[in-house]
Amino acid sequence: MGWRVLRGDDSAELDLRVRYAETDRMGVVYYANYLAWFEMGRSEYCRQRGFNYLDLEELGYHLVVAEVYCKYRKPAKYDDLITVRTSLHALQGRSVVFRYLVLRKETQETLVEGETKHLCTDAQGKAKTIPEPYFTHLSRGLPR
Amino acid sequence: MGWRVLRGDDSAELDLRVRYAETDRMGVVYYANYLAWFEMGRSEYCRQRGFNYLDLEELGYHLVVAEVYCKYRKPAKYDDLITVRTSLHALQGRSVVFRYLVLRKETQETLVEGETKHLCTDAQGKAKTIPEPYFTHLSRGLPR
Amino acid sequence: MGWRVLRGDDSAELDLRVRYAETDRMGVVYYANYLAWFEMGRSEYCRQRGFNYLDLEELGYHLVVAEVYCKYRKPAKYDDLITVRTSLHALQGRSVVFRYLVLRKETQETLVEGETKHLCTDAQGKAKTIPEPYFTHLSRGLPR
Amino acid sequence: MGWRVLRGDDSAELDLRVRYAETDRMGVVYYANYLAWFEMGRSEYCRQRGFNYLDLEELGYHLVVAEVYCKYRKPAKYDDLITVRTSLHALQGRSVVFRYLVLRKETQETLVEGETKHLCTDAQGKAKTIPEPYFTHLSRGLPR
Repeated sequence: MGWRVLRGDDSAELDLRVRYAETDRMGVVYYANYLAWFEMGRSEYCRQRGFNYLDLEELGYHLVVAEVYCKYRKPAKYDDLITVRTSLHALQGRSVVFRYLVLRKETQETLVEGETKHLCTDAQGKAKTIPEPYFTHLSRGLPR
Repeated sequence: MGWRVLRGDDSAELDLRVRYAETDRMGVVYYANYLAWFEMGRSEYCRQRGFNYLDLEELGYHLVVAEVYCKYRKPAKYDDLITVRTSLHALQGRSVVFRYLVLRKETQETLVEGETKHLCTDAQGKAKTIPEPYFTHLSRGLPR
Repeated sequence: MGWRVLRGDDSAELDLRVRYAETDRMGVVYYANYLAWFEMGRSEYCRQRGFNYLDLEELGYHLVVAEVYCKYRKPAKYDDLITVRTSLHALQGRSVVFRYLVLRKETQETLVEGETKHLCTDAQGKAKTIPEPYFTHLSRGLPR
Repeated sequence: MGWRVLRGDDSAELDLRVRYAETDRMGVVYYANYLAWFEMGRSEYCRQRGFNYLDLEELGYHLVVAEVYCKYRKPAKYDDLITVRTSLHALQGRSVVFRYLVLRKETQETLVEGETKHLCTDAQGKAKTIPEPYFTHLSRGLPR
């Protein structure tokens, strides 16, 4: 997985403050918790493209996570202000790939980079094409 | 809420080992995580009384948490072996109260004491009588 | 524990959006996760009274949780906008009690009420008087 | 990352039961929670090779997570009995790679596969060679 810098125009940003609950005994954010931030990032991405991920679920669809990759560069710490920058990396009929940069807001240092691949399914877990108008909403974020 | 020592004969015990994920930057188990252990305790309680809590949910019922009380005496730490001792404190048609002792297994020291009150509801959130045979299964654990 | 409505002037408010990670298979926020919101509430409370809770920890002090009480009235759901309203209920030399209201932001409905009692300790876990200027900062939020 | 089946002789197994707390509104285990299971898996791996990961930390060393990869095949559900099978994939002076298989215990179906890469650091975050006797303990699990 080769990493390239995400361009701001294609991405959606979300700020959050690190919770005490998210730290571990090493004094830094526990490594699994970044995945919850990724999820917040892609929800925000959808919101900025004109829909709620919830709408898709209420229609009976899920974007099930198929793969995750995460590279940890520097730790986030309690009370840090964090920016999660989410962009769309790939979109096909039944699958979508998001990329994430987790930054320390003040310094814009990259702490963590990640990627998630999702498959669109119905409530029974059967693969489905991402329905309209959501496919079109998503595609507006594709890198040009 | 007056606390009394639970008698072993009425209670169900479950052992667990503290996960790194459950600690926080103070080096001890984060205070919310004991509530997940309580939930494991009451699942185990049901199992030892002859049913799975899942059976009740698959029938369309939930034991929704209405109240929680928790008293923290000493912290649990990473890699500790813990015993969660769960007993039934009260049972009425539509509600049930569980009590919990969280012990360090080796020393039998009490770390945390807790209590949860649950209401039985249907899938629409309407209060319901705990259905048979679950009510009877539960009642066999009542203090005599 | 008798509950009274918190007066807005004494309290600190924090808004958050419910994460997918915070829900459970019942489709609502898992009951332990409200305690993480309480923690965010009291951090915000400190911030609005002029200090970071982190400063206190870096000085070698902790506000260890001794007791929690929580009453669940209505569930929070994925993607809900939530307000956590935190106020100081009691303050003594070595202990402090916070109260929390968790509201659905749009409707101002109360979803959950809670209370946490904390003891001030040093790094070795020994009880200590809350040091200045933090004691004075906190006391400015006491109900008059 | 090409995946091969782990041979039982080199791996360490740990059983766990899925907690309600670990599920999300889709009714399955939230995708980040498998990473906590991986952590339990590698703790168990160390234990079966003759030491506690805690010993290493108490000596002032950490095995900081540098990369995670995870592939989700089938979901784990509430109350499922799960086996986490952990093996050592690579070991160098300052880094170690673990691989994980998450199986439904009863059927031995693979639900999730994962890999974590760790760097050994001191308390200040500086890269260090994994100290003896831990390096030797770990190496006994290398595939032959």
